[in-house]
Amino acid sequence: MSTASTGYEARQLVRARKHTTQTSGLAPGYVQANLAILPSAQAADFLRFCSLNPKPCPLLGSTEPGDWRLPRLGKDIDIRTDLPKYRIWRNGALEREVPDIKDYWRDDLVAFLLGCSYSFEEELLRAGLALHHHERGCDVPVYRTSIPTTPAGPFSGPLVVSMRSFKPADAIRAIQITSRMPAVHGAPVHIGLPESIGIADIDKPDYGTAVPMEPGELPVFWACGVTPQAVVEAAGLDFCITHAPAHMLVTDLRNSDLAVL
Amino acid sequence: MSTASTGYEARQLVRARKHTTQTSGLAPGYVQANLAILPSAQAADFLRFCSLNPKPCPLLGSTEPGDWRLPRLGKDIDIRTDLPKYRIWRNGALEREVPDIKDYWRDDLVAFLLGCSYSFEEELLRAGLALHHHERGCDVPVYRTSIPTTPAGPFSGPLVVSMRSFKPADAIRAIQITSRMPAVHGAPVHIGLPESIGIADIDKPDYGTAVPMEPGELPVFWACGVTPQAVVEAAGLDFCITHAPAHMLVTDLRNSDLAVL
Repeated sequence: MSTASTGYEARQLVRARKHTTQTSGLAPGYVQANLAILPSAQAADFLRFCSLNPKPCPLLGSTEPGDWRLPRLGKDIDIRTDLPKYRIWRNGALEREVPDIKDYWRDDLVAFLLGCSYSFEEELLRAGLALHHHERGCDVPVYRTSIPTTPAGPFSGPLVVSMRSFKPADAIRAIQITSRMPAVHGAPVHIGLPESIGIADIDKPDYGTAVPMEPGELPVFWACGVTPQAVVEAAGLDFCITHAPAHMLVTDLRNSDLAVL
Repeated sequence: MSTASTGYEARQLVRARKHTTQTSGLAPGYVQANLAILPSAQAADFLRFCSLNPKPCPLLGSTEPGDWRLPRLGKDIDIRTDLPKYRIWRNGALEREVPDIKDYWRDDLVAFLLGCSYSFEEELLRAGLALHHHERGCDVPVYRTSIPTTPAGPFSGPLVVSMRSFKPADAIRAIQITSRMPAVHGAPVHIGLPESIGIADIDKPDYGTAVPMEPGELPVFWACGVTPQAVVEAAGLDFCITHAPAHMLVTDLRNSDLAVL
């Protein structure tokens, strides 16, 4: 796996196709972002959806229609080439995955960049907490809940959450640490009683990989960036583009920049 | 029940014997403190015990030997008269309760004032969280745990915790709010799995009153000021003085002064 010492260097590797795989760990300390690109006809509703649902949709930045640059998130970003893999969607169905979207770019497209859990996971690891899905080298388990998001235009659906389990004292520490980072999902939305948020079987996640809890641990649930992806998919838009899972934009922001204290 | 608009006014009521009962709610917004008075021969070890165990023993202030004043905690405090009820202990046993300790004062006595949960409970209520023991008008349930304190000289024993139960989202909020207040026990020490900290039966507290949890709630446990009281009692000192339970010193500090953010 490649490593870059800055977000800028990471994007140069990606743009030159020297890095074509998942971005996890690519530029440690730098904020990575989920991507959703929508036609401007739907962009205002999606922006409203993000602003009504900040925990699953923490908006780090967005573009002007047709503009592929994002100077506030990073020097010389070209959103058409700087992620390793994109997904092209038509009428709510996945059409194909592509290494860049220059052939799909249109003057009416608006890109939205959303904070992701990589940032807070780095802070949890730095604090000495163990993340079982890291230890196992698998995806985090992700669940649809019975908690509704606040709808906006065509965008609606359930809150989707990721789960990490900890011993109770570590769970309290994880709540403190992620509370400092509202721009990347912030504090957990739930702890301890999954059935009360509509999760019938913790061993059967709706996305990601089942990760067994160890004895004496509690499950802790954070709002997850799969929420807007599922909501966009369910809206059945004529056309949209997203990042391929785990193939994110690496920005010039540092995770520490996102800590509110 | 009396109400005072400031800590100073509260102490004047107490000193004049116009207020002789529990101090809960006496001067809303002002910090109340637990009291332990020890001979100077044991004072250094007790101070060390507090500094080694800051969560159960958050020290707000202490006196010079023989001095009854505490100017940093409040104007004109006389620790001999400004609490409504004191307990006199000899050889580790309760001898009597008295309304002032002028007759017991000695030149070698050192008073220690410790933060208490009243302060963080006010913040929890202000945030709209419900406290079931308040709703029922009873004491909070308090339990000995299997977690040891760090001993110092004759002072040792288990961590004692208080329990308040909340719906999971409110438990997360309560962790955030009390994390801001390390001078009054700070963040919880445990959540959710009482058996893992040696609490066999949540319905049988070791001190205080059993308060049933409602369906869908988690028990949340904070380090409790009963810890140093039990430790001092177990040390079997020739002589010491404490506040009578719930009959505290009202200080000039505001709860908001204790919030670190």
